[in-house]
Amino acid sequence: MSASRKLYDLAGADPDLRFSPYCWRTKLALAHKGLAAETIPWRFTEKEEIAFSGQKLVPVLIDGEKVVSDSQAIAEYLEAAYPDAPSLFGGPQAKALTQFIRRWTDGVLNLALVHVLVPDIFNLIHPKDQAYFRESREARLGITLEALAAQRSQHLASLQAQLAPLRVTLKGQKFLAGDTPLYADHIVFGGLQWGRKTSSTPLLEADDPISRWMENVLLYYGDSIQR
Amino acid sequence: MSASRKLYDLAGADPDLRFSPYCWRTKLALAHKGLAAETIPWRFTEKEEIAFSGQKLVPVLIDGEKVVSDSQAIAEYLEAAYPDAPSLFGGPQAKALTQFIRRWTDGVLNLALVHVLVPDIFNLIHPKDQAYFRESREARLGITLEALAAQRSQHLASLQAQLAPLRVTLKGQKFLAGDTPLYADHIVFGGLQWGRKTSSTPLLEADDPISRWMENVLLYYGDSIQR
Repeated sequence: MSASRKLYDLAGADPDLRFSPYCWRTKLALAHKGLAAETIPWRFTEKEEIAFSGQKLVPVLIDGEKVVSDSQAIAEYLEAAYPDAPSLFGGPQAKALTQFIRRWTDGVLNLALVHVLVPDIFNLIHPKDQAYFRESREARLGITLEALAAQRSQHLASLQAQLAPLRVTLKGQKFLAGDTPLYADHIVFGGLQWGRKTSSTPLLEADDPISRWMENVLLYYGDSIQR
Repeated sequence: MSASRKLYDLAGADPDLRFSPYCWRTKLALAHKGLAAETIPWRFTEKEEIAFSGQKLVPVLIDGEKVVSDSQAIAEYLEAAYPDAPSLFGGPQAKALTQFIRRWTDGVLNLALVHVLVPDIFNLIHPKDQAYFRESREARLGITLEALAAQRSQHLASLQAQLAPLRVTLKGQKFLAGDTPLYADHIVFGGLQWGRKTSSTPLLEADDPISRWMENVLLYYGDSIQR
């Protein structure tokens, strides 16, 4: 562990439950760059703890004197600050193509996931976070957690439909970026790891190409990430 | 025009109407490689005309002694046969990322488009193709052309929803591949050009970032493609 590199990482009631899709992007990006970091468990309502970053969301990375928030800004920072470590993006053209995968993940995959996961997440977070979480998510999604939970089967079906292009891609290649993972893999992995950490039912069959890819991502980074 | 390079290109009743999304991929790929080709208008039922290719679909490229069908196989062939011309894929990592964009285009974008366009295409194709087209598309989609046309507004809405990740990506960069287009751009452009060539109503506003990107693709290749 580097004493000077710290990452505020969203945690559940169990401080070892780390489920934020955006924090997972950053943890994989740090592993990709070969950079150790101490992860600090953080709860949704601990806004004061990260007030020094000038905003209210994790991930927040402290790297020596530098403070960076927002997973995309952190990835850009790491790429610029550690140019001799393996590239996160694979050059300007691959980086540009990664933006489409990011937008698809944020707007399609993670949107499908949030409709499945939010009721389950409510049951896993610290009790002090529950009122905030319920209020903010019900306002954002325009539905109560209980009504959302009652629609679970239809949201699971929608998620499976949206996974189709990812699944067929990963039938033909080991990682999204080819033989080894890049940040595009981290982005999509973050969403599905969020699902694996919080869903009350498995989202993927063990023999799904997406499941095999997730295992391969974890194997690739090995002990350098906390699974 | 190269007398020895020919591309069989799907045409409507008007032989100058060239609308196949897969033929557009190939025409842009040829332009990208700086390779002139004579395009031969081909109708759906002219299976005998391309029997020499060993299959029944266009695009079919004749390049000297070589015959290649299937747009993906053609792109791979062009990249291998013309390594000194600009790369279609931008290296192995960008090429792998392109596969996700291809699978999204084939399985999401073009599927949304087909539900909008098929009734319009029926009215634009050669009369000799209409019985074949109706029968094959009604069997594939499980609905009559007339019933599909009656659902147009909902399929237009679905198309707009599916375009969201493309639109937000193109708000932030000139091409999917960055400052200049690559085959990932050709793949997605093909689908939307298919829409532009055949839809009875405009699919995109003129100030849509997707419209601006389409114009930029056409400008980039200039007179080397038939618009």
